Amino acid sequence: MSKVLVTGHKNPDTDSISSAIAYAYLKKQLGVHAQAVRIGEVNKETAYALHYFQVDPPVFADEGVRQDVEEIILVDHNEAQQSIDDREKYNVVEVIDHHRIANFETMAPLYYRAEPVGCTATILLKLFKENNVDIPKDLAGLMMSAIISDSLLFKSPTCTDEDVQAAKELARIADTDLESYGLEMLKAGADMSDKTPDDLLTIDAKTFDVGPNKLEIAQVNTVDVEDVLENKDLISDRMNEIIREKQLSVFMFVITDILNSDSTIVARGDDSNKVECAFDVSLNDDTAVLKGVVSRKKQIAPVLMKEFSAKTNA
Amino acid sequence: MSKVLVTGHKNPDTDSISSAIAYAYLKKQLGVHAQAVRIGEVNKETAYALHYFQVDPPVFADEGVRQDVEEIILVDHNEAQQSIDDREKYNVVEVIDHHRIANFETMAPLYYRAEPVGCTATILLKLFKENNVDIPKDLAGLMMSAIISDSLLFKSPTCTDEDVQAAKELARIADTDLESYGLEMLKAGADMSDKTPDDLLTIDAKTFDVGPNKLEIAQVNTVDVEDVLENKDLISDRMNEIIREKQLSVFMFVITDILNSDSTIVARGDDSNKVECAFDVSLNDDTAVLKGVVSRKKQIAPVLMKEFSAKTNA
Repeated sequence: MSKVLVTGHKNPDTDSISSAIAYAYLKKQLGVHAQAVRIGEVNKETAYALHYFQVDPPVFADEGVRQDVEEIILVDHNEAQQSIDDREKYNVVEVIDHHRIANFETMAPLYYRAEPVGCTATILLKLFKENNVDIPKDLAGLMMSAIISDSLLFKSPTCTDEDVQAAKELARIADTDLESYGLEMLKAGADMSDKTPDDLLTIDAKTFDVGPNKLEIAQVNTVDVEDVLENKDLISDRMNEIIREKQLSVFMFVITDILNSDSTIVARGDDSNKVECAFDVSLNDDTAVLKGVVSRKKQIAPVLMKEFSAKTNA
Repeated sequence: MSKVLVTGHKNPDTDSISSAIAYAYLKKQLGVHAQAVRIGEVNKETAYALHYFQVDPPVFADEGVRQDVEEIILVDHNEAQQSIDDREKYNVVEVIDHHRIANFETMAPLYYRAEPVGCTATILLKLFKENNVDIPKDLAGLMMSAIISDSLLFKSPTCTDEDVQAAKELARIADTDLESYGLEMLKAGADMSDKTPDDLLTIDAKTFDVGPNKLEIAQVNTVDVEDVLENKDLISDRMNEIIREKQLSVFMFVITDILNSDSTIVARGDDSNKVECAFDVSLNDDTAVLKGVVSRKKQIAPVLMKEFSAKTNA
C-alpha cells in the first residue's frame, strides 16, 4: 500500500501541526498507511505544545518524503496557494477543514468534511468518535492545544460552543488543566522579547484597500503590552517610514493582550482620526485601548474599512 | 427566521429529488426553516417512487419560491453549471454530495459533507443517525429508491458496500422488499415505449474526442432490449445520419438491460471495428452483447477511448 501524506497549510500554526499528527494517527488505526508532514517551520507556540506532550513534530515534506507519494490528505486548509507545492501532482483523497472553500478542485469523488467551527481539531474529535477509535492522551493534549490556539482560549469571536465543549473533553483525556496550560502555551507563542521594531510591524501585517485609501493593520499577540511598546519611539519612527513608503492613509499597530483579551493600538497617518471615529476612542500619544477586541478579521478590519468607505461615498 | 432552500441538480434524478426532501426534513427537525425544491421536471422513475410512498414532489424553484431567500443547501451536486441559476446570489451554507468538487467556491466557512459512495442518500442516513433523528417510513422509502436508482440495484461499479448496507437498513424502516420494489421502480424509469428512434439516440448521448476522432455513445436503460430494437432499421438509418452530420468515427448505441445487467450495443461508423477490439466481441449485423457492462462512465467510455488513443499514438 503506498503512503498517504497528511498535511496542514504553509506557515503552519498549532492546529495545522496537531491536526496532521492526530488525523494521520486515526487513519493508521483504520488501516491506512498515513504519514503526518509539515510544509513549514514549527512556531514557538506549537513547539511548546509538542514538548509538553512529548510528541515529535511531523517530518518536513521534502523530496525524499514525497517520493512515490500519489495521494494526500489536507487538514486545516483547502486553497491551493496555502497548500503543498505542486499539489496538482497528487490526488487529494480527503480534506478536513473549517475554512471557506476556494481554489479547490478534484478529478474524482473524495471525502470532504468541513464544518463552520473554530478549529479543525474540533471536527477531528467527532471523527475519532464516529470511527470508535480512542484518542491517546498525548494526541488529546495536542488537539486541545489547537483549539486553545485558534480560539485564543475561547476569547476569539470565531470560537463556537462546540469548540469549547471539545476542548473540555480533550482536556479530561489529556488530564491537563485547560486554563493554566492554555495560558502558558499562548504565552510561549507570544514571546516577543527577541523582536526588533521592524519585526513587530511585519510579522503579521495586512493591507486593505478602500477606494483611494490604503490601510495597514499589523498585529502581535503578547502577555505584556508594555514590554512590546518599550521602544515606542523607534516603533513610531518605523511606522512613519512605512507610511511614506507604502503611501498609507493610516497604519494601525495592534498589540493584543491574550491574558485579558483587549488590544492596545498605535495609530499613525494623516487619517488616524478615522480610527478614533471607527472605534469610538481618543488617541493619546497615538495610543488607545480597544476593550474586548482580539480579532483583526472580525473586529478590526471591517470596522475601519466601513469608516473609510463612509468617507469615500460621502 | 428566513427560509433555506434545499436543492438537487438540474435534470433531477431520484437521488436529487429524494435527498432534497429527506435533508429538508432533517433540517426542519433540527429547527431550521428548510424547504425542499427542484430545478427541473420529475422523471418517470422518481414519479413512481413518490407515488409508491405517497410523498409530494418538491415545489419547482420559481421566482415566487426564491423570493427573499438568502441561503441554500445543495444536495447531490456542487458544480455551478449543474446548479440553480443565479447561484451567486445565494449563500451556500451546506453541501451534501458524492461527486468530485469543481466550479465551487464560497466566501464563508460552511458545512460540506462529501463521501466517495454511490449515492447522496447513503450519506444522509449517517446524518440522521449522527443527529439522533428517526427517519419516517415514507422518507426511508425514498432514500432507498435513490440508492437503487444510482446503483442500478447494486449492479453499478460505483456502488459501495456502504450503499448496499444503507439500502437494506432503509428497506427495513420502509417495510418494503428491496429487490421486487427496486425492479418495479427501475422498470418504470426504463419505459421506452413512447420513444422515437431519434429520442432513443439523443436522450442521454455524450461525445468524446480522442485526437482527430469523435466518438458518440448514447445509452438507454430498459427491461426489454428487443422492444427498444423493434425498429432497428430506422435506428440504424438515424445513426448513419448523425454520423455524417457530426463526422463521427464511431457511434455506439448502448441498450442496458437492468434486469440482467448486460448491455446490447449497436455500433456503426468507419471505425466500428475498434469497438470489436476494445470489447473483444464480434459485431453481428452491427450488434453485440457486452456481458456485465452497465456503466458508460466506468466501463465503456474509457475502454473505447483507450483503443482509439492506441491507434492515434501508433
